[in-house]
Amino acid sequence: MFTEKFYEVLKYEGVVSITSWGEDEPHVTNTWNSYLVITDDERILIPAAGLRSTENDVHINNRVKVTLGSREVLGFNGYQGTGFLVEGTARFINSGLEFKMMREKFPFANRVLEITVISAKQLL
Amino acid sequence: MFTEKFYEVLKYEGVVSITSWGEDEPHVTNTWNSYLVITDDERILIPAAGLRSTENDVHINNRVKVTLGSREVLGFNGYQGTGFLVEGTARFINSGLEFKMMREKFPFANRVLEITVISAKQLL
Repeated sequence: MFTEKFYEVLKYEGVVSITSWGEDEPHVTNTWNSYLVITDDERILIPAAGLRSTENDVHINNRVKVTLGSREVLGFNGYQGTGFLVEGTARFINSGLEFKMMREKFPFANRVLEITVISAKQLL
Repeated sequence: MFTEKFYEVLKYEGVVSITSWGEDEPHVTNTWNSYLVITDDERILIPAAGLRSTENDVHINNRVKVTLGSREVLGFNGYQGTGFLVEGTARFINSGLEFKMMREKFPFANRVLEITVISAKQLL
């Protein structure tokens, strides 16, 4: 699912956006490239302390859209910079081995946002 | 409207997210911190080449949510990194002095996304 280019982006720091939408208008929140942990089966794990609006939305509609990128990584046709739009389904977890692993890595996390990826599209 | 901190973020490169929503699910697209031009009266101008989904949404509902940040700028309580959520109303322009100015700066632009800011909230 994820290309080499995607993993290259994760080597650089940057702002990740997470958009969720329930019944109301969408909510957008952020995390950092360096906070994304990719599992062997290519789910995305993100440490959560706040993210309450995201969680409320996810209870109504579990689809999310995530964007990330880096100016340091070459995009299409030699363009200096690339970015990805990742679509997936989300859930919040607060127990289990993966939660424990994330908690050790990010002690501030009281939940983990797990995204099961539907598509990951390189935008430029 | 914009704080010194906001302008500080703009000095660093990073990924900006733009979320729009019409009748359908929201669309999320990206640009770079360095592409944002702030007018004297604190509207945001963004060069647009694509952004067709955003434009379609804006014709139905002109509200947008924009996020940006930088790990290089100190957030609240000495946290290394900060980010903003900007809410506003959007329109696309393709003529006039501001369009011309943007076109000189960003020759790839065939329209300009202009955002009139409602709120700009520092998130962390």
